[in-house]
Amino acid sequence: MKIYLAGPEVFLPDAIEMGEKKKAICAKYDVIGLYPMDNEVAETDGIKLSTAIYRANIEMIEQADAIVANLTPFRSVSADPGTTFELGYAAALRKGVFGYSNILPNLKDRIELVLGGTTVINNRIIASDNLLVEDFSLFDNLMLAEVLGKTGVIRPQTALADPHRDLIVFEGCVRMAKIKMAAQ
Amino acid sequence: MKIYLAGPEVFLPDAIEMGEKKKAICAKYDVIGLYPMDNEVAETDGIKLSTAIYRANIEMIEQADAIVANLTPFRSVSADPGTTFELGYAAALRKGVFGYSNILPNLKDRIELVLGGTTVINNRIIASDNLLVEDFSLFDNLMLAEVLGKTGVIRPQTALADPHRDLIVFEGCVRMAKIKMAAQ
Repeated sequence: MKIYLAGPEVFLPDAIEMGEKKKAICAKYDVIGLYPMDNEVAETDGIKLSTAIYRANIEMIEQADAIVANLTPFRSVSADPGTTFELGYAAALRKGVFGYSNILPNLKDRIELVLGGTTVINNRIIASDNLLVEDFSLFDNLMLAEVLGKTGVIRPQTALADPHRDLIVFEGCVRMAKIKMAAQ
Repeated sequence: MKIYLAGPEVFLPDAIEMGEKKKAICAKYDVIGLYPMDNEVAETDGIKLSTAIYRANIEMIEQADAIVANLTPFRSVSADPGTTFELGYAAALRKGVFGYSNILPNLKDRIELVLGGTTVINNRIIASDNLLVEDFSLFDNLMLAEVLGKTGVIRPQTALADPHRDLIVFEGCVRMAKIKMAAQ
């Protein structure tokens, strides 16, 4: 079984080492982890490097049986938009979809933390940026939470010291993915 | 021809009016605009409202011929993660994919604006949050920019007064989508 390992780890200075660790955890469960950086992509024949990386990542998603997306908020109150693009792509191809976060609070609480208190006007929650706040008691934008079905976004029981690097929740998510995919 | 109108307009206090305006512009080009809020979704038969909205949106993407995604940064340096999920979903189904932004600068410049200056270490650009910055001279995460092909993210020529509501660039994007889809 192959799992595509989507997530913002590729933007860590130690991105390659993180990929090795994630793949080693997958191997414990007899799963082949496909990590974006595995593609030894080079600029060739007039194809831009960014285009080559895009194509290589898409090819990996297409050959995977499932995706495990790290939805830990990245430079914002929400998940990395590249990761959510890949989650949508995998979902449309009817791959197994699994997601986790190393941060516990729901979207509404994260927005309040970053933007200050919200106001309720006509039964709608408005943040200090004058934009609405989705309040479905979900972890992130409803498209991301709902695509994961009843299991939703797997999260830690307690706050983690290094949310960008901790792999405890990831391991739990891979274990669950393995069991759920086998039961299909 | 039907186009799914993905974007963070659904989080504006005047979300419904924005949808009407976008659909009216589509109609000028003989295009049927499918706007997420069109689904008069209600909580029924034990299905959660968020689940019902998710399913209705997915159904609209599946029946569309193309997607026009508003990738204007939303509450962050990047696009709304629900919109990028939908862009990925549509791309995997081989729909026509088009995207625009009402903000001009590239990702790297936006990150520098928000997070302060970047540092270059071993040929890699690091922001003040100790995370890498993609530097492909693209508008956003490479997955989002590259899926759009050579046209890339359509952007305004000059700064717009109300980037959350201006529809000039959207109209240009719909016009282009119409021409490109007809040429297929």
